[in-house]
This record gives sequence, structure tokens and C-alpha cells, in this order.
Amino acid sequence: MPKRTLIRGGEVVTPTDRFRADVLIEGERITALGDGAQWDADTIVDAAGCLVMPGGVDTHTHLEHMSANGLTRTADDFHSGTVSAAFGGTTTIVDFVRARPDQGMYDAFQRRLESAEAQCVVDFGFHPIVPPTAGDATFDELARLAREGATSWKFFMSYPGTMVDDRVLIQGFRRCAEEGVLPMVHAENGTLVADATQRLLSDNQTAEHQHHAAHSHVAEREAVHRAVTIAESVGSPLFVVHVSSRLAAEEIARHQARDFAVFGETCPQYLLTSYEDYAGLGFEAAAYVCSPPIRERANQEDLWHALQTGVISTLGTDHAAFTLSQPDDLPPQKPQGRGYFPKIPNGVPGVEDRLMVIWEAGVVGGRFDVHRFVDLVATRPAKLFGLYPRKGTLTPGSDADVLVWDPAADHTITAAGHHTRADYNLYEGMRVSGRPRHVLSRGDIVVSDGELHAPAGRGRYLARATSDTSR
Amino acid sequence: MPKRTLIRGGEVVTPTDRFRADVLIEGERITALGDGAQWDADTIVDAAGCLVMPGGVDTHTHLEHMSANGLTRTADDFHSGTVSAAFGGTTTIVDFVRARPDQGMYDAFQRRLESAEAQCVVDFGFHPIVPPTAGDATFDELARLAREGATSWKFFMSYPGTMVDDRVLIQGFRRCAEEGVLPMVHAENGTLVADATQRLLSDNQTAEHQHHAAHSHVAEREAVHRAVTIAESVGSPLFVVHVSSRLAAEEIARHQARDFAVFGETCPQYLLTSYEDYAGLGFEAAAYVCSPPIRERANQEDLWHALQTGVISTLGTDHAAFTLSQPDDLPPQKPQGRGYFPKIPNGVPGVEDRLMVIWEAGVVGGRFDVHRFVDLVATRPAKLFGLYPRKGTLTPGSDADVLVWDPAADHTITAAGHHTRADYNLYEGMRVSGRPRHVLSRGDIVVSDGELHAPAGRGRYLARATSDTSR
Amino acid sequence: MPKRTLIRGGEVVTPTDRFRADVLIEGERITALGDGAQWDADTIVDAAGCLVMPGGVDTHTHLEHMSANGLTRTADDFHSGTVSAAFGGTTTIVDFVRARPDQGMYDAFQRRLESAEAQCVVDFGFHPIVPPTAGDATFDELARLAREGATSWKFFMSYPGTMVDDRVLIQGFRRCAEEGVLPMVHAENGTLVADATQRLLSDNQTAEHQHHAAHSHVAEREAVHRAVTIAESVGSPLFVVHVSSRLAAEEIARHQARDFAVFGETCPQYLLTSYEDYAGLGFEAAAYVCSPPIRERANQEDLWHALQTGVISTLGTDHAAFTLSQPDDLPPQKPQGRGYFPKIPNGVPGVEDRLMVIWEAGVVGGRFDVHRFVDLVATRPAKLFGLYPRKGTLTPGSDADVLVWDPAADHTITAAGHHTRADYNLYEGMRVSGRPRHVLSRGDIVVSDGELHAPAGRGRYLARATSDTSR
Amino acid sequence: MPKRTLIRGGEVVTPTDRFRADVLIEGERITALGDGAQWDADTIVDAAGCLVMPGGVDTHTHLEHMSANGLTRTADDFHSGTVSAAFGGTTTIVDFVRARPDQGMYDAFQRRLESAEAQCVVDFGFHPIVPPTAGDATFDELARLAREGATSWKFFMSYPGTMVDDRVLIQGFRRCAEEGVLPMVHAENGTLVADATQRLLSDNQTAEHQHHAAHSHVAEREAVHRAVTIAESVGSPLFVVHVSSRLAAEEIARHQARDFAVFGETCPQYLLTSYEDYAGLGFEAAAYVCSPPIRERANQEDLWHALQTGVISTLGTDHAAFTLSQPDDLPPQKPQGRGYFPKIPNGVPGVEDRLMVIWEAGVVGGRFDVHRFVDLVATRPAKLFGLYPRKGTLTPGSDADVLVWDPAADHTITAAGHHTRADYNLYEGMRVSGRPRHVLSRGDIVVSDGELHAPAGRGRYLARATSDTSR
Repeated sequence: MPKRTLIRGGEVVTPTDRFRADVLIEGERITALGDGAQWDADTIVDAAGCLVMPGGVDTHTHLEHMSANGLTRTADDFHSGTVSAAFGGTTTIVDFVRARPDQGMYDAFQRRLESAEAQCVVDFGFHPIVPPTAGDATFDELARLAREGATSWKFFMSYPGTMVDDRVLIQGFRRCAEEGVLPMVHAENGTLVADATQRLLSDNQTAEHQHHAAHSHVAEREAVHRAVTIAESVGSPLFVVHVSSRLAAEEIARHQARDFAVFGETCPQYLLTSYEDYAGLGFEAAAYVCSPPIRERANQEDLWHALQTGVISTLGTDHAAFTLSQPDDLPPQKPQGRGYFPKIPNGVPGVEDRLMVIWEAGVVGGRFDVHRFVDLVATRPAKLFGLYPRKGTLTPGSDADVLVWDPAADHTITAAGHHTRADYNLYEGMRVSGRPRHVLSRGDIVVSDGELHAPAGRGRYLARATSDTSR
Repeated sequence: MPKRTLIRGGEVVTPTDRFRADVLIEGERITALGDGAQWDADTIVDAAGCLVMPGGVDTHTHLEHMSANGLTRTADDFHSGTVSAAFGGTTTIVDFVRARPDQGMYDAFQRRLESAEAQCVVDFGFHPIVPPTAGDATFDELARLAREGATSWKFFMSYPGTMVDDRVLIQGFRRCAEEGVLPMVHAENGTLVADATQRLLSDNQTAEHQHHAAHSHVAEREAVHRAVTIAESVGSPLFVVHVSSRLAAEEIARHQARDFAVFGETCPQYLLTSYEDYAGLGFEAAAYVCSPPIRERANQEDLWHALQTGVISTLGTDHAAFTLSQPDDLPPQKPQGRGYFPKIPNGVPGVEDRLMVIWEAGVVGGRFDVHRFVDLVATRPAKLFGLYPRKGTLTPGSDADVLVWDPAADHTITAAGHHTRADYNLYEGMRVSGRPRHVLSRGDIVVSDGELHAPAGRGRYLARATSDTSR
Repeated sequence: MPKRTLIRGGEVVTPTDRFRADVLIEGERITALGDGAQWDADTIVDAAGCLVMPGGVDTHTHLEHMSANGLTRTADDFHSGTVSAAFGGTTTIVDFVRARPDQGMYDAFQRRLESAEAQCVVDFGFHPIVPPTAGDATFDELARLAREGATSWKFFMSYPGTMVDDRVLIQGFRRCAEEGVLPMVHAENGTLVADATQRLLSDNQTAEHQHHAAHSHVAEREAVHRAVTIAESVGSPLFVVHVSSRLAAEEIARHQARDFAVFGETCPQYLLTSYEDYAGLGFEAAAYVCSPPIRERANQEDLWHALQTGVISTLGTDHAAFTLSQPDDLPPQKPQGRGYFPKIPNGVPGVEDRLMVIWEAGVVGGRFDVHRFVDLVATRPAKLFGLYPRKGTLTPGSDADVLVWDPAADHTITAAGHHTRADYNLYEGMRVSGRPRHVLSRGDIVVSDGELHAPAGRGRYLARATSDTSR
Repeated sequence: MPKRTLIRGGEVVTPTDRFRADVLIEGERITALGDGAQWDADTIVDAAGCLVMPGGVDTHTHLEHMSANGLTRTADDFHSGTVSAAFGGTTTIVDFVRARPDQGMYDAFQRRLESAEAQCVVDFGFHPIVPPTAGDATFDELARLAREGATSWKFFMSYPGTMVDDRVLIQGFRRCAEEGVLPMVHAENGTLVADATQRLLSDNQTAEHQHHAAHSHVAEREAVHRAVTIAESVGSPLFVVHVSSRLAAEEIARHQARDFAVFGETCPQYLLTSYEDYAGLGFEAAAYVCSPPIRERANQEDLWHALQTGVISTLGTDHAAFTLSQPDDLPPQKPQGRGYFPKIPNGVPGVEDRLMVIWEAGVVGGRFDVHRFVDLVATRPAKLFGLYPRKGTLTPGSDADVLVWDPAADHTITAAGHHTRADYNLYEGMRVSGRPRHVLSRGDIVVSDGELHAPAGRGRYLARATSDTSR
């Protein structure tokens, strides 16, 4: 007989509803919600004064991420990364699989799966990355992966050596349409970015913060439009990751208004930090380097607006942690690009902070309500990436990934206190009033009152279903 | 100890979720959802093969509606109208209160309440209608009504004798903002409508179908824009009832895109019938006469588009039943305007058909999914009109207004089979595959397998809270 | 045999062309352009180094303008006003006729015509102002005036006692359509303005600069949309005078994009001065008070943008000069409203400055070229108001209203140097590099090197033809 | 002493003006306009009852055009093509120069120039075509050509072997910006077109009319947006040739609305013929094959709308004549692609018909006035392509390229009557009421009353100045 856990006394929140109810968990699943006075349980989790929400779903992480050239790797492995996620209330991540040039997609997937299974403390899935050389054979392998639950594929429209041309986009999106796969794009016109980079270098504008100048707003808008056009041409939906520019958001809105199934994700770093934060820094500007870049402060309000009007559907992190110092046990980190921005490893940490900072700026800040919060960080990503109804919701039958959220916490975010291996935090010193008190993953209490109770390897691979792109 | 009812074996559907669960009702309220194998109950409702949804909420009915000049009245009283609603799966209506010129608002409300309490079989609320003469005294009375739960006020921008000028809109919307009331507008520029009517009459274009020619698309767009501007000026949200024109929908979309809180309702008659259906008829065209008018077929697709892209938030009926024949026991009905369209009583029936025809054309027709259906017909109107969480949802603590919906029914809509006193049905002969099997109102089974089990007067007045206009 | 005048050695500029040519004038008309080496003439005007352009056409002046209540009058009469115009290079004005409540339109027109004929030094026309009480009889009189050349009628949508309701707009625009008349609107929702004014007064916010707060952007947008809708409904074009808000400009653009014939005018004061210029002033803020108000600095760039993209078609001045001091020989001027903004006479001077300041900020400032300049200040207003080809162009057959413009002048605008009776100048101290050297009206040199050569009364009434609204 | 010609008694029309005037020509240039009663002349051209307009400027012809693979050539050489142009009232053409893979741009230009100089009967210029392999050396050669008057460069975004990638667009547009050159694009996403073609072939959909299916609207929209983005990134203006899709026109409009300098051309075949005209034909559908394709009838009205609202700036022809039969003296013509659309030479004739058919459908049809006509077919292309003021206008000093246009002609367009070597005419049987009576080129009467008076080789190369992109 399965273990029974009762979350008692909280207020359940979903994208639609908010109600006082106890949540009964039997084994790994939720079995009932309601007045649980008569329900007995092995374990009682006290949720008094708390909101009870589905565990966070972050569909954009880069753990144990090797650079395309094989020369560097992110600071977080699957263990430190998922521990950090769990502390932040995120109980599902979807990460990426990239094959080395000499490697098949399926083989790459297997090795990545093994590593993740050995280390993860919460559940995980994978988006395969479509290589620039992809042809029929590659797509056949990818289709096999789709049948094994990798039902979203990532296409890079930028980065030398990784960016795909229109031929691959067309062929790839068509295969997505055929296989029920959701295509995702990193939307920047890589040729424009490369050209701007080259011109900056020619002008000796190599300082860390110049990374920003290499990535124009219009390069992002262009890629969005092109990807939409190709998706539309072959009949697939489209997911645009890390929308950073108001022009890209407007472009997405324009196509949504004619009912084209395009979805956008943005990330906390684009909403809460800005170019002005690092324009005046020296090497420390490297802490902010990611692509698309963290943009001007004036751009933030337009991104929030896109969230508020529903143009942006999900919040991911693009968590790719690198250190500002150079630890001995890690390959080259941020210092690799000291004084020469093209060599700075791209990426910022954030998997642990996502819910706290967005709660603070979004819900406490009056930009949207708690329903929209749950939708952005859990339900919508789960639906779009084929995880629903196992993840992203609190209903009888769904996985008991539950977040007991204390809206009256008083917590200050610091690098000293976080659990990623990154040695800095973009939100250093930010005071937040909402924070996970207990985090459950498939019925297990994995974090409780700031303590971890989860062995490495308890996380499981999630074979994902087809995307639900209804709105 | 309260009566316990268990709805067993169905699949619960909300705007967000869909899951197999039994629903436990104790007394008038839902107390738990989940695996109810261990739950005992006095009554078991079999929901096998069915969807279990919140009962329909129709925030736009005109029962026992007296014309402004006192010369006619709708065919349905509160009894026949709410019986018809219940048969169609609607367990909440919000109707209107209009004071006679010589009558105070509060007095009008009291008399209306008495009549409704004596007759209604499901729960009900009221929107007071703001008179054209409204000044401080009237608004003070309206504010009193708001405190008693009439938290939405209707402003007519058209109809001689009823339409309000900009002064009343400004003062009225400001009071709405101050009192937490949602202002609703009938959005047509009444001066344009009156002018077009006069010109048709001058040209002897008096046939029934000419009603259509008197109500231009741009007259509707104009009123929407003016109402938005005034709402924006005084800081209130805005609800536009019965959006009929694609131009009005576009206008609403434009202001939503800049995050202004404007909401739109449309009605089944605008989506499923068209001017082409009555342009060639003689007197029978009167069956289609309502304002704004039922528009051209080409307009329908744009309205559906507005539903699909979220521009339209709710579906009401504007149910105002008149008969095509002239029964002895009713004041003048449609025949009053035979051959002279300005005298045709405005209004069409539909409170019973709403869910069935929209399920068929919307969900079965592939335009949106079942989640959106529930949102349009129940949850969103409940939220916008301060009825949530009592109505419009299925959560522990909410009223047990439950619809057990058979998605495999095979029903043909006919006037012979409906329960309104209207002697025609706009959807005559339409085959629908979804239909209520059981309808519960506050835990009572009011309709079951086509039989009514509800005494007149069991319906209760709903003191509504403030509108929830978050999106 | 008529007098022959030859303008020699200049460069002729039109909205399309720019070419070196001599201009031959015989009597009042131009007869040839080209190489005039063989052409003899009685008078030679030296245009070496100069541009030769059509004389300015200002279709928006208020000279000898009596307030609606009869209590005040502008400082400029027809003489001082047209002298000021001529010094600024403007050779045609179109002013207004308003009937007193007890007066017929035709009679009002006759008296106004007599006064103007006695005083004007350049040619003039009139726009009748449609009174709020207008019905068939008034429109019949207006139609008679249209046949006598008053082919544009002004409708005020704001100002108590002057603003017309939708009924008058509908009936009036329809008569315009029937009579070939161009309807012009002062586009502000007067009820919103009155309400905002009342609230400011209730709050004791009566300081001069609060005039700005009483006139919102959205009140202007609303009126534009309503006027467009009504014009569209009856089949007339529409001209919106003094567009001041970016929201109004956007509204016009939206309807132009669907090819509706709506045209906009703006004025130099909205482009070159801003609320920030008077927000901090005391009584002197009265110098800036006009309606719509001079808006925020951030609004200027959007108005320039509307000029550059062609959304705004003409530049008028709305010249209505009042003095900041109170001369003995004038009725109450700006001091009337000291400390109480509703009593400040609305209006600013500018008829003399228009070409100079717009040349400086527009052409010298790189916003548009000299062709567009000529179009904005002369050709387009002449076409839209039925003055073309007599005015607004330099072609054989047209009136010899010629401006010899020195683009290498160095002039500083001052109240001390201008010729209006206003005792201040909004552009005080502005250095401009373009200025009239010679100004000809029907072949007469009326201003030359800063000297006036024009007797009062030489100006003639212009019976205008139908508007040319082609674009 | 130069020959003096006097065009007497006509009405001169320019984009701004319309006036009765005689036009005096001395040698090759216009010297005066006006009342020419006193002007003597060697030759009098009677223009009574006629409009006198600048000769047509067609900036988009393909005469003596060799296919990229060297296997075919258009039917018209420079002689037959310019004779056809002259008969149609066009006195300036701008054609293209493409280098063979083994050939330098400058060499290709020289050979093309020699051929044109030997044959043309009217003046001509060239747009060099930027090859897909272009790098610094090629752009240096192109810059040299720009200094010799080839101040616009063509970039193909479609066609295998010809289409350029983003790198070339970026580098090329930047050189354009540096050299004062106007970049022109054939805007279709060539990868999407190739993909669609391949799929049609795989499905055995090879019939002639399937050419249409291979070229989607969105492929054209995509290329417009990408080209705009790149132009914007490097600071150049942009000219989009042969806009065929309403989506492309909307895209252009969107960027013009924010004042970006993008201009569009369309061609008569897109306005006056449609897919429906050839969808049902067999091989004869080849007559309509050009790229972008002639689109659906429903698209025409939106293109006219774009002309009317000013979104489209010029009308060219893309004249590329091929025969439906296969003459012995020509390389493979349309029959080459019988039954297999990818082999049909792309192109349609039209250089002779342009003015007549657009006058009929545009001016006579009430879509725009005669001023806009002159602007579209002569003045605007002259300005945009650096030909103004020599061409495109009738002012003292400009070339005497004059069209004496009979607006009361009654002419039927037929292949039998035209002067191109094409053996069909898309407008066969169309009756037109406007037609050239006399055509002058640099003072020579080259066509008069249907007779040619122009020796081969009288046309001269036009070294063009920098584009005037002011609006």
C-alpha cells in the first residue's frame, strides 16, 4: 500500500482557481483535493498560511553543457543544477542534447540520459539540438527520439558552427509537423550578429560589455519573422525561446493576432537586469553575457507588457552557469574572455531564483496575479512541452510535484546562499517575500525549510507527449 | 448533517484542467474531488462517459422584460426563462433592472427581486440599467445597489429614451471606478442608428429585414471607442456586451493590446446566423431582429477569430424572447412590427441553446478546445461579474452548480422541444452532439435526463462581489 | 497692356520640382517660366541666390475674432493680421465667420466680408462656423455661402456654447457631401474637457498652466475617431484642424491606411513649444494657452514623425493673438484669466512666423526637404481648400503670389520685430536662416526687404472651388 | 543655333500641377513653359486636346537578357525593346547588367553598353546585378560602376545560382550606403521557393500553371522583411522590385509607417491579370509565367489599395519577352518548359503597354488622378534612380523627353499591333482611351501618330546620380 501524504491547510492555486483544500497524495500521485479532515496519512505537511502550487517547470536549462568546440563546460552538472532547481521550487527541468560532430543524435542522447539519471534530484527531459548538417538520416534519428519522448527540437539561428540555414529550418520544421514535435528557435540572425561582431573587433571594441552591441534588436526581430514564415509554410507551430527584444515580442504579437500558433518564452534576466547594469563594468560585465544579450532598461517595460498581454507564454531561465573566478576543477569559465567579449562563455545562472524574483516583481509588483504566475512558471510550459497532466498542475492523477509557497517570507537573494556552482548571482541583494517552504517531487519531500532531502539520481527521465498548443 | 451527493465516474473539465475524478457534494457545496471509492453519499449521480463542468453562467438575459415605453413585454417570465436555462445547462443568470421614469432605482430593484425570487428555478443576479437622466441622486441609489450585490451597471449608448450621453457615461463610469462596479455598454452610436432609420423610413424601406441596414458596423465601432476612451479617462474597466461587428472586435483588440482592461461578450446568434438567413424573408425576418443586428455571413468568421484569439471573453445570449404569433395572453409581440421594422420588439431567444450550439460549432467544429468552452460559458463570466468562486468553477468550497455533459448525445434543436415561450428557434433543425445529462444547482438535481425537478422559487438572488478583471 | 514683372535669377521650387528659371508675370498672373533672357519687363525682381516659391497659404487664422460670448476680441484686426502674414511670406489666409446667436449666417458673412475687404493687404477667404443649433434653415444658408465660395465649414466638437452634437455632425457632414464642401473639425470631446475642467476647479487647480491638464490626449483621439466615423457614414471627406496629440495623429494614420479621405493640419506651436516651456511659469503661462493645448515635449517628436510620414497634410497657425498686457484700446486680453485658467482667452499668435520657424526646424533641421515644405505651407492647403490653381503654385495662369525666399538670411525672431499686435512671440530669440526677401501678391510687390508696399484693402475675397482631396 | 521646337496648345501635367502651356524646346532641352504666342520655333507640335507629360521612365526591363545558365535569351534585343518602349510613350529604360561567372562586372558592363549604344532608340541606364559570390573585389568594381552612373544594384534573394545569402546582402547594402547606391531586391525567399518546387515535382505537379504554387505569398513577405532589416542594420534605403503579394505590400507599409526608407514597385501584370486567367490553361499558361508569379484575383484589389495609399511608389514592367511559339532565329523560348514549369523561361512582355493599361485602369477607372499617374510612371522612378531632373519632369533645363498624350483615343491592345517580338500580349483585346500621340526624346520626335522616326543607336547611356529618396 502506497505511502499517503497530506498537505494540510493551504490554499491551492492554479491558473484558473484558488481555494482552500487539503491535498492527498498516495504514492507518487495526487488522489484527492478537498476537505481532508477525514483523510488519514502517513505524513502531514503543514501548509498553513501558504499557497500550494504545482512545482515549477523550467524548460530551458543548460546543465553539464559542453561548448560546441568542446573547450569549455558549464559550472553546474546535473546534480548541482537540479539541487539548485529544487531549492528554488522547480521540480521539472527540460535540458538539451547536442551531438558532437562525430556523433549520432541517438548515441548523444543515450550518454546524456545516463549522466542525468545518475545525478538529477528532480525529473527531467531533453530537447535535442538540430545540427547544421541535418539531413534525412539525422531527422530519422530525431524522429526516433521524439517517439522516446523528446518531442521538442531546438534550432539555433545564430552562433557559428551551430546555426542552421533556411533549408534545415524548412526540412526540420516539416519533420516537426509530421512527428508532432514542437520546434524551438534561438531567434537571432547569426549573419548579422557575426557581421556586427566583426566590425566591433575591427574597431578594437572588444570590451566585455560590447557583447551587447553585437546583438541588435532587429537581428532578433528578423529571425522571429523568418522562423514564423517557415513554420507557417510547413504547417508547424513555433516556440521562440528567450525573447529579449521588444521588437521580437511585437513580431510575435503580430502573428498571434492572426491566430498563428507562435509562442514565446522570456527569462528573468531580461526583465530584471539591464545593459545599464553592466555597461560601466570592466571584466565583471562578463557576468551578464548571454545571447540574446541583456538589453537596455527601456526595453524591460515592453517585455513586461508582453507578459501582461499574454504575448509571452512561459518563463524559463536559460540557466547556463559559469564562474567569474576560474576554479581549478573546471574548464575555462568567464575569465576566458577577459577583455575580448567573443571568447566569454555565454550564459547566466538563474534556475534557483526564477520563481522568487518573478513572484516579487510580477505578483507583489502588481503586474499580474497569482494565477498567471502559476501558468507562466509551471502549467503553460508543461502543456507546451508535452508534460501535462503529469506535471504543471495539481489534479487527481497528476504527479505529486507540489510547491508549498510561503508568501510571507523575507528572504534576500545572494550568491552565498544559492546552490548553483556559479559564484555570483544577478539578483544579489534582492529582497523577496515569496519563497518555497516545502517542495515535493512525486510525493517525496525533496526540500523542506531550506534542507535538501533528495539523493542524487532520484530524478527520472520524462518521456514527453505531443505539445498542447491550444490557447 | 447535510445531504451528500457523489458525481461518479466523469471527467472534470475546467479552463485549465481535465482529469478523471469523482465530485463530492455536501449540502450545497462541493467538498472534494478525487478518487471517491471510499466516499459514501446519499445520492450517486452517474457521470460515466460524461464531462463534468461548472454550470453555465449567462450574464445577459432579459426575462419578464418590459419595453421602455411600457407597451410590451418579453414572452418569458422568470419561471419559463430559468426553466429554459436549466434545461440548457445554465445554472446562473444575470438579468437587468430598469426603473420606470417615475420610479427610483432601489424600488425598481426590490420589485424585480420579489418577482424573481418567486419564480426562478436557478440562481440569479441583476445589472441595474443607468437611466439617461442619471445624476448624483441616481448614482447614490445605484451605489447602494452595488453594496447589495448589483456590481455591474448597464449603459445604453443607443435607443431613443434609453441612450445616455457622454456626461452620464463620464459620471457613471467614474462612480463605477469608485464603487468597484463593472460598467457594461450596449455599444452603438444611437444618433447614427436613428439617422439611418429615419432615412430608411423616408425612402419607404420599412420591411422587417431593413432593421439590418439601420445599424452600421461603424456605428458599433464608434461607440466602443468612445466608451473605451471615457473608461480610460476615469480609470474604470469596461465590458462591451453583444459584440456583433468585426470592426467592434478589432477596436477592442486594439485597446487590449495596450493592456487596457476592456472585455467583450458575443452571442451565439452572431456566430451562427446571418443576415443572409433573413434578407429574403418577409415578416419572418422579424424572428432575427435584435440590436446590434445579426450581420452578414462574411462577418461571422471574424467574430470566431476574435473568440479564438481571446479578444472576446464571454458568451452570453441577450435572451429576449418574443413570439412570431400573437398569443392572447401576451402584450404585443413580433407582429407589432409587421411591415414596419422600427416597431418590431428587439430580441431573440437562446438561453437554452447556448451551450449546445457553441459546443457543436466551437469544440466539435475544431475552433477551440473544451477548456476554452468552459471559460467562455461559465468561468470567465463568473469572474468578470463577481460570482466567482461561488459560481463558474468546480472546486472545494464552491456552489455545487454542476453540469454533467454528454458529449456523445445526438440531439436536434427545435422550437417544439425547447422550454422558452418563444414559438421559434433560430437553430431549428441543428443537430448537436453535446447536451446536458444532469444539471445540479447548489447540490439539487434540477434537470436529469430531460426532466425538470425544480420548484419555482428555488433560485436565489446572488449578491455579487467586485469584478475580477485580471486576465 | 498689363504691367510686366520679371523675377530673375532664382530657383523655382514646387512640391515636385526645383529648377533655375525666370518667372514672367503679366498683370496679376504668371505667364511663363524659363530662360527669360529675351523677355522684357517693366519691373525686375532680383532673385539671385534665392528660392522662388508660391506665397504661403494659411488656412487657419482668427483675425478680428470675437469670442462666442461677445466679451473679448483678438488683438489683431484684418489689417494688422494680414500685414503680419505678408511679412512672413503668407499671401493667402482663410479665416472664419461665426454668426451671433441672433444673426443669420449669410448676414454674418456679409459683415465680415465688408470688414475684411476694407482692411486686408493680401487675399482671403472664409470658413463658416456651423452653430450648435444648426438645422435645415441654417444649412440652406450655408449651402448658399458654399456657392459663393465658402467651401469648407468648421464644426467645433468642444467649447460650451459652440460644440455641436452628433446630430449636427451627421446632418452637417451630409450637407457637406452634397454641396462639395470640406468639413473641418476642432477635435476634442468637449464633455471630457468640461468634466476635467470642473474637477480641476473643484480641486482649486486654477493656475494658468492647468489649462493643459483639462485637455487630455484621449479626448482628442476620441473626437477624431467619432468625426471619421460620421464622415464615413455619410460619405464626406474630413479635415482635422490643429492636430496636437500623437494619439490623434495615430488615429488619423489608421484611417488613412484604409484609404479613407481624412486629412490633418498641425501648427508650429505644437512642434516647437511644449508644456515644459510654461509648466513652471506663473501668469506668463497664459501666453501658451490655446486649445488643444501645447503638449509635452515627448509628444513633439511623434508629431514631426506624422509630418514626415505624410499623415499630417498641412501646416496652419490657428493665429489668434491676444496680449499679455492689457492695452486700453482692446477688450479683455490674456490678463482676464489671471490665476483662473478657464477665463484665459484661447489662442497664440504665429501667422508671421510660420514659414520661418518651420523652414528652420523642418528643412534646415533635416526633417524634410524643400519640396515638402512648399507642399505643407502652400500647395496642399491651396488644393484642399479649393484655392488651387489660383494659389499655392507657380504655373502659367496662376495668380502671381510669389515668395522670393532667402535661404541664407540670418534673422532672429522677436516680438519687437514682428507685425502682429501680440506683445509676445512664442519663438522669441530663435535664429532662423530662411526668410522672405520679396513677397508678391497678384503681381504686386507687397513686401520687399522688410518694407511694406501694400495699402489696406488691396486684398480680395477668394471664392473658393471644391476641395481637391486626391492624394 | 539649336533647333527650336514648340509643343503648342496642350495641358501640361506633373505630379503637382496641371496647366495650359506651350512648351519651348531648344536643342535637347526644355527652355520655357508658358504662353508661347510670341515664341517662334522651327517645328510646331500640335498638342491641342492633349495632355503634355514627361516621357515614361521604366526602371525595370530585361532586353537582350541572357539566362543565368547561358541557354536562352529574351526575344527582344535593345532595338526591338526600345522601339516598343517608344511606341508606348516610354523614353527612358533602365535595364540590367549581369556578369557571366568567368567575367568581371566592369567588362560585362562595357559589352552591354556597346550593344545598347548600337541599338537603342531611347535613352537607357543599367543596374548591375550583384553575383552570389560577391566579395570585396566585386564590390570595388561595382563601386567603380556606380561612379560611372550605375547607382542602383540588384540583389536576387531567389533563383538557384543567382540568389545571394545574408552575408552578401549585408556587405552589399553596406557598400550601397557608402557609395550612395540604391539597393534593389527581388524579394522571395529562394529556399522556400526551391523547396515548394521540389515538392510539386515529387508530386508530379509539373503543369505550367503550377509555377504559381511554387511561389507563396509568405515567401515574398519574408524576403521583404529580411531585406528591410538588413538595410536598416547598415543604414541604406531599400527598393523592392515587382511587389506582387498583398502581404509584401503590407510589410512595406509597416516599415514606411515608422519612416524607414523602403520603396516598392509593382507591375501592370500583377494589377490586371490573375492566376484565374491561366489556372485552367494548358501550355498557354506559360505566357503568364514570371516571378514572383501573377497571383489570385483577390490579391489585385489589395495591390491597387497599396498604390492608392502611396505604399507602392513606382510602376515598372519587368519586361522580359519570350515567345509562345519557337522561332528559328531565337534560342529556346516558352516551349522549352512545355509540361514542366521549372523550365519555362520566366518573364512577360509589357514595356509598350504600361502607360496605356495603367491610365485606363488607374485614371479612367477612378483609382487615382493624372498627377499620381505621372508620378508612378515617370517622376518617381526618375527621382529614385538618379535620373531627375534630366528625366521624369517637364521643367526648364530638363531633357525634352515629352509625351503628348491623347486622352480621347480609342485603341485596342493586340499582339498584332504591338512592337515587341513577343508573339502574345497579356492585355489582348483591352480597349484603352489614352494613348501617346507624339513622343519626343531629347527634342527629337521619335514616334508620331503611330510612326517611328528614330534610328537605332540614337539612345544614349545615362550616367545616373544618387537616388533621391525623400518623400
